[in-house]
Amino acid sequence: MSSAFSFALHARDGGARLGEFRTPHGVVQTPAFMPVGTQGTVKTMRRHDLEEVGAQIILGNTYHLLLRPGDELIARRGGLHAFIGWPHPILTDSGGYQVFSLAERRKITEAGAEFRSHIDGSAYMLTPESAVDIQARLGSDIGMVLDECLAYPALRDDAERSADRSARWAKRCRERLDQLRSGDTGDVAVTNPGQAQFGIVQGGVFQDVRDASAAATVDLGFEGYAIGGLSVGEPVDIMYSVVGETARHLPADQPRYLMGTGTPEDLVECVARGIDMFDCVMPTRAARHGQLFTSEGRINIKNARFAEDDGPLDPACGCYTCRTHSRAYLRHLYMVGETTGSALNTLHNLSFYLDTMRRIRDAISLRTFERFRQEFLRSVSRLSPDS
Amino acid sequence: MSSAFSFALHARDGGARLGEFRTPHGVVQTPAFMPVGTQGTVKTMRRHDLEEVGAQIILGNTYHLLLRPGDELIARRGGLHAFIGWPHPILTDSGGYQVFSLAERRKITEAGAEFRSHIDGSAYMLTPESAVDIQARLGSDIGMVLDECLAYPALRDDAERSADRSARWAKRCRERLDQLRSGDTGDVAVTNPGQAQFGIVQGGVFQDVRDASAAATVDLGFEGYAIGGLSVGEPVDIMYSVVGETARHLPADQPRYLMGTGTPEDLVECVARGIDMFDCVMPTRAARHGQLFTSEGRINIKNARFAEDDGPLDPACGCYTCRTHSRAYLRHLYMVGETTGSALNTLHNLSFYLDTMRRIRDAISLRTFERFRQEFLRSVSRLSPDS
Repeated sequence: MSSAFSFALHARDGGARLGEFRTPHGVVQTPAFMPVGTQGTVKTMRRHDLEEVGAQIILGNTYHLLLRPGDELIARRGGLHAFIGWPHPILTDSGGYQVFSLAERRKITEAGAEFRSHIDGSAYMLTPESAVDIQARLGSDIGMVLDECLAYPALRDDAERSADRSARWAKRCRERLDQLRSGDTGDVAVTNPGQAQFGIVQGGVFQDVRDASAAATVDLGFEGYAIGGLSVGEPVDIMYSVVGETARHLPADQPRYLMGTGTPEDLVECVARGIDMFDCVMPTRAARHGQLFTSEGRINIKNARFAEDDGPLDPACGCYTCRTHSRAYLRHLYMVGETTGSALNTLHNLSFYLDTMRRIRDAISLRTFERFRQEFLRSVSRLSPDS
Repeated sequence: MSSAFSFALHARDGGARLGEFRTPHGVVQTPAFMPVGTQGTVKTMRRHDLEEVGAQIILGNTYHLLLRPGDELIARRGGLHAFIGWPHPILTDSGGYQVFSLAERRKITEAGAEFRSHIDGSAYMLTPESAVDIQARLGSDIGMVLDECLAYPALRDDAERSADRSARWAKRCRERLDQLRSGDTGDVAVTNPGQAQFGIVQGGVFQDVRDASAAATVDLGFEGYAIGGLSVGEPVDIMYSVVGETARHLPADQPRYLMGTGTPEDLVECVARGIDMFDCVMPTRAARHGQLFTSEGRINIKNARFAEDDGPLDPACGCYTCRTHSRAYLRHLYMVGETTGSALNTLHNLSFYLDTMRRIRDAISLRTFERFRQEFLRSVSRLSPDS
């Protein structure tokens, strides 16, 4: 059994790359943005909403799904696609990041991470092998290796030690996946035999540690490579610099995924530095707080100046929210706490993100990416963000 | 200026009536169910959801809209239809019921109801005249007179006194509307000149008080008549009896609206007794609590027996939720508190209610209502409700 995953690079424009990858559940055009569907749904969204805004792939959080409803229950449903009614590609993370950020009483050793659920205190052990097994049960199209997540700021020695451990864990993840692929699955119900696996480059903001981590990870041979441990508090110019340098150390013929990033500007800037895939809670979480991305910059819909504003949220946007409702109505829904407002806001923010990705792909295809980038950065910074 | 409202009765089958009414924002087929859109949205729903399930008219709550965002702000938006982006018919209540059930420090006199907002304590005065003015600003297609709401159980004398006051208030409401219609609008921005006005029959469970209230209300001459003050705790057989007797005292050529009722069985039973219009929070509120109406009776989706149930919520239902998702997934969304689940549940419950109304209309049209009624009551009572 081998991976049904493949990646094709169609065009380059400067550092920016246009391509697509194939998975058992369909094709994804890159550069791609993946909305985050933490608990088996992108918050407030339904499948047809995501299809309408043009999402080709979503992300599921292994940590949350492991806790509720459990990976074994999902496997008995035939995997995550069948369970949540999303027939298109899914990427799952390894659960590591949430263990480091959410779980209680965690204890990290070379073996893996012992922790207790933040919901009911029940005990779990996440190892490189079990992270692979859980994701095999979930049956995502792309699984991620378990990595150790470093807090920012970190000392160079800690970054190096952590990257080394992540590399050893990555090797164990790959070996476990090879074992599952060979048919030696034991009690693991593999619900998507064509699942790909991506390695993750760590190393904090220390470029030589990043370079070594990239080399060690690439050496293991994954279907794609992620850059992890960024957007954790470091200055944005350092983030861009690490992304650009690290991307150079990754194979040109495989996809590159920048984890957990970012603002619309970040997407454009990191595409310019050779990134093909992104995920971030920003568009969905910000929407629920009334923070909306528009072609003229960010606004906060709770601002009193929108109380009697009959115009659409973003005159340049063609999404359902902008076609149907006014800023005054969206502000009202926010002020009275109606979740209809959260859903309409989320629909718009995701439209904005996914439209941005489409415009990025068009620009690369037309070899006008640099001009697009300059114009985009100018337009989105026209309004300063409301708090 | 006269009302653009008209009602046509197309068929009768026993006590059940098939008809339609015309409003400035379109036609509504009766018997009709009106989803409740308290604060300018049916909770968790969007306009296209309501259109998809077949809602032809929704209800807006004057009390909530008066408090937030305010009737004057809505009038400046061009009225409620424009403000909320719902181009189809809307009925508004008078605000009286919420003043009696929600507001703080209320003081009821012959003049009207003095109260304080349950949100911020600010003071308001709702009189028969101001209830008409507020609804004129909202511009609903059907406005309701202000009535006094009686608690259950009530003494006969109290019911009589209250019904008499409601009749005096109804007269003042009608006179105020006539004044607005004559063009003497003062500072009231009338956003829907074709707005109709319904009177309300009160009288608790005392049939002779009801009969007198009906006669007094009909005497004032409204475009339609509502039965208020039921479904407030009285036994269901008493409610059915009062509905049936009271309906007989209402004009056959005008619509009859039973306020705030009820279960699917109530709708069928009250159609059998001559009712044409219903509203109730039950399908939407129950959905958010995981209580779902199906062709086989009520279920509560949080029940553990659904954890691994891959079947649709209701095999007989064609709604988006039933077409797309399993009971196992809906249970998961409920258990983890995702509002996507509330929305999917609401979509289904409203589909069930509005499908029931369609089936009622079909049955009346085919003169098979009595058979439909027997089969419906048998099927929905097949499962006893989960708690």
